Amino acid sequence: MVDHFGFFDTRTFKQRYLVADKHWQKDGGSILFYTGNEGDIVWFCNNTGFMWDVAEELKAMLVFAEHRYYGESLPFGQDSFKDSKHLNFLTSEQALADFAELIRHLKKTIPGAKGQPVIAIGGSYGGMLAAWFRMKYPHMVVGALAASAPIWQLDGMAPCGEFMKIVTKDFSKSGPHCIGLQWLTNTLHLCSPLTSEKIPTLKGWIAETWVDLAMVNYPYACNFLQPLPAWPIKEVCQYLKNPNVSDTVLLQNIFQALNVYYNYSGQAECLNISQTATSSLGSLGWSFQACTEMVMPFCANGVDDMFEPFLWDLETYSNDCFNQWGVKPRPYWMTTMYGGKDISSHSNIIFRVSLCSPGCPGTHSVDQAGLELRKAACLCLPNNGDLDPWSGGGVTEDISDTLVAINIPEGAHHLDLRAHTAYDPQSVLLSRLSEVKHMKKWIADFYSGAK
Amino acid sequence: MVDHFGFFDTRTFKQRYLVADKHWQKDGGSILFYTGNEGDIVWFCNNTGFMWDVAEELKAMLVFAEHRYYGESLPFGQDSFKDSKHLNFLTSEQALADFAELIRHLKKTIPGAKGQPVIAIGGSYGGMLAAWFRMKYPHMVVGALAASAPIWQLDGMAPCGEFMKIVTKDFSKSGPHCIGLQWLTNTLHLCSPLTSEKIPTLKGWIAETWVDLAMVNYPYACNFLQPLPAWPIKEVCQYLKNPNVSDTVLLQNIFQALNVYYNYSGQAECLNISQTATSSLGSLGWSFQACTEMVMPFCANGVDDMFEPFLWDLETYSNDCFNQWGVKPRPYWMTTMYGGKDISSHSNIIFRVSLCSPGCPGTHSVDQAGLELRKAACLCLPNNGDLDPWSGGGVTEDISDTLVAINIPEGAHHLDLRAHTAYDPQSVLLSRLSEVKHMKKWIADFYSGAK
Repeated sequence: MVDHFGFFDTRTFKQRYLVADKHWQKDGGSILFYTGNEGDIVWFCNNTGFMWDVAEELKAMLVFAEHRYYGESLPFGQDSFKDSKHLNFLTSEQALADFAELIRHLKKTIPGAKGQPVIAIGGSYGGMLAAWFRMKYPHMVVGALAASAPIWQLDGMAPCGEFMKIVTKDFSKSGPHCIGLQWLTNTLHLCSPLTSEKIPTLKGWIAETWVDLAMVNYPYACNFLQPLPAWPIKEVCQYLKNPNVSDTVLLQNIFQALNVYYNYSGQAECLNISQTATSSLGSLGWSFQACTEMVMPFCANGVDDMFEPFLWDLETYSNDCFNQWGVKPRPYWMTTMYGGKDISSHSNIIFRVSLCSPGCPGTHSVDQAGLELRKAACLCLPNNGDLDPWSGGGVTEDISDTLVAINIPEGAHHLDLRAHTAYDPQSVLLSRLSEVKHMKKWIADFYSGAK
Repeated sequence: MVDHFGFFDTRTFKQRYLVADKHWQKDGGSILFYTGNEGDIVWFCNNTGFMWDVAEELKAMLVFAEHRYYGESLPFGQDSFKDSKHLNFLTSEQALADFAELIRHLKKTIPGAKGQPVIAIGGSYGGMLAAWFRMKYPHMVVGALAASAPIWQLDGMAPCGEFMKIVTKDFSKSGPHCIGLQWLTNTLHLCSPLTSEKIPTLKGWIAETWVDLAMVNYPYACNFLQPLPAWPIKEVCQYLKNPNVSDTVLLQNIFQALNVYYNYSGQAECLNISQTATSSLGSLGWSFQACTEMVMPFCANGVDDMFEPFLWDLETYSNDCFNQWGVKPRPYWMTTMYGGKDISSHSNIIFRVSLCSPGCPGTHSVDQAGLELRKAACLCLPNNGDLDPWSGGGVTEDISDTLVAINIPEGAHHLDLRAHTAYDPQSVLLSRLSEVKHMKKWIADFYSGAK
C-alpha cells in the first residue's frame, strides 16, 4: 500500500527486498530483517557483513528491505519526487508499516517462516527504524539491534551545537591550523557555473564535506561515501595548514583539499556542488524527511567549532523547507510518536553506539589491500578518540535489563555491522559476542514461549 | 492535524474535549484520560461514572477526548462524511495520534500536569483504543483500562458465528418460541415508504434490533441506546411467542415487538429503519470504520442461531463497502498494526470483560426509580448467564502479570464504567477494587521512577 493509514488512496507499489537463505533452517531458525534506510538496499546489503557473519550461528534467513522512496522502491516511479503531494507518503511510519506488511507477506508465502522469530537490524537512520519497529510492532520482531542510531538527535534532545563541535575536534587533531576554514566564500572547479544565488549552496556544500569527512575518517582506504585514502582528514588538512596566505593561494589550497574527498580516484572532471556522497544514498529523499519528521537541530558558534556561526532557527529552517518542498516540518512529532527519551517500557533493543569516528563498513568484496590495512584498525581510543559526530544523539547507557547500550570505544559509525575480520579490535569482538548472546536469548525466549 | 502521518495536507481541526479537575491535585495527582469512541463525548462523559467515582482517590484530573468524526469533532464540518476523500482521515491510528497530541498539549498548557502519570480508560471500541494507546504510546500513558473491548473480534480471531449465537441464546431464554423470527421479510409502520430495494435494509434493520436488544437486556429500566423497560427482551418476546399465526397477525406482532425497542416512550410517530440506536452514537462514522479497518466478521447459520443464514463473505462485504463509501476494507491490517493475539510484550493493561448481557451504564443523573431497580442488579449468573455478545472477541484470560483480564460474571457491557451505587453486585465491587489497585500501582511506579 502506498498509504497504510488511509483508505481513499488504494495505489500500491513494488518494494524491493533481498533474501538470503543459505544458512536458514526451518527447524529452530530465525529471520534477520534489515530495516532499510535512506539509500539503495543493495549497497546496504553489501555493507552489512555482520548479518552474513552471524547467519549460520543463528540459522538465519537474511532479509534486506528497501525503504520506500529510495533505490528502486519508488511509489510513483519517476514522479515520486515531483512535489509534496507525491512525497506525502515518505515518512518513517509508512516505512515501518511497509516492513510489517513485508514480514507478514514473507511468513505467509515462505513455508517454514511463519513460526520463526524475527530480529530487526539497522544502522544510522536504519538503526532508528529498527528500534522504533520493535517499539511499535513488538509482535513482529522479538528484538532489535540499532547501530549508531541517533534517536535522541531529534526535537532538541541533544544540544544543537554538539555535532559540529565533534566534527571540529576531529579536524583539529590533524594540525593546529586546519580549523581556519570558515571564512571561505569563493569559487572552485565546479561542474556548473556559480551564480551569486548559489553562494550559500557552495558554502553549505563545503561545510557538509567537512562533516562527511568526519564521518568517514577511517584508518584505511575504502569506499563508503566516496573512495578515500586512509585517514582522509589528515590528507585534507595538509593543504589547509596555513591560513596566512593570499586569497588566491588559499582558494587553490581549498580546491586541493576538496579534491581529496571528491576526486581521490582522479577521475572527476569537475566538482558537483549538489552532491556530497555516493549516489547510493538518496540525498533528495533524506532532504524531504529532514524537512518533515526528521528534524535534527544543528548549530555552530564559530568559537567551539570551526564553522561559520549559524543559529538553530526553526522558523528559517521551516521557511526554507517550504520553499524547497512545499512542506513545513513538525519537529516535535517524532517525540510524540516514538517517545523521545521516555522509552523505558519497551524491551529487547540493543543500542550500539560508536564513540569513534565512523569507518568503512566491511563488504564481502573487500580487497586484500583493505584487509591488510585493517591491521591498523581503529586507533582512536577514548583518551584521544575521534568521535562519531552522531554519538551525541545516541543512547549510550542502559535503560533497563532489556534496553541495552553497547559502547564501542574503538568502534565507528556502523562498524559493528560490517563483516568480521581477523583484525577487529578486541572491544568490537566482545561487543559482537554480547550482541549475538542477546539475540540468541530473544530467539530462545520466542521458542520457549516466554517472550 | 487532520493528517498526522503526512505533510502535504496541513489542515487542522477543532477536537472537543472535556476536563474536570475538581479532585485533581498537582501534588502526586494523576490524569484519567477517556479515549473517546464512536459518539458524542458528552454522552460518554455522562455514562462513565466510574471515572468520577475514583477521581478523588486518585487525585485525578478527568479528561474526555472526543473521537474525530464524531460529536462535534468533525474535521471538515458538514462535509466530513461527503465522500471517501473527506473520510480518509477517519482511522484508529489518526484517533490515537489525536489523543497523543492532546495529552502533549494539556501537559504543556496546564501548570502542574506535565509531571503526572496519565491512565487511558475506555469502553467497547473506546476500550480497544485505550488498550492500543498503551501499546503504541506507552510513553504517554502508564496504563490502560479497557472495558468490554473486543480486540479479538477482528480479522477472524473469533469464529464469525459466535456473536449471533450469543444473541440467540439471550432471546431463547425468554420463551421457547421467541426464536422463530428469521423468516420475516415484509413491511411495518415505517417513516419512509418501503421500496423493493429497501427490503435488505429492512431485514438488516430488524436483525440489528435484536442484536441491540441483546446488548441492552438490562434488569431495570434505563436509557442507553434507547429508553427501555426492564428486561426488554422478555418484553419483546411476549409478542413473538407463537409463530403459527397468519402472516398478517405475525407482522402485527413483529410491529409490537419492534415498538418495545423503538417506541417505549410512546412518542415515536413512525419507525425509522435507518437508525437503531441513540443519535449520540455516530452510526455513519462507524459504518465507514467497519468498511475500512474495523472489519468484524459475522455470520449466522439459522440452526445454532435464530437469524436468516448468512455467510461471512469478505468479497461481498468488500463490494458493499465500495458501493456505499467508495472504499474497500483491509481486514488484516488491524492485526498487522496492533498485534492481534500476540500482545504479550506489552504491559499495564486491564481487560475488563463482562460475561453477562450488557447493561445501562450509570449516569450522574440516574433517577431514583432506576437506582431502586438496581437492587435486582444483574441476576444473570454463569450457569444461566445472558452473555454479552461482545465477550466472544474479548481478552478473558491474563496474558502476563501486567496484562490482566478481569471477568465479571454479573457484569455487563460497560458495567464497570458506570457510577458506583449501593446496589452493585459483590463481584463488581471486587473487580473495581482490583482495578483501582492496579491503577494506584501504575501511578506509584511512575512517581518512583520504576515503570
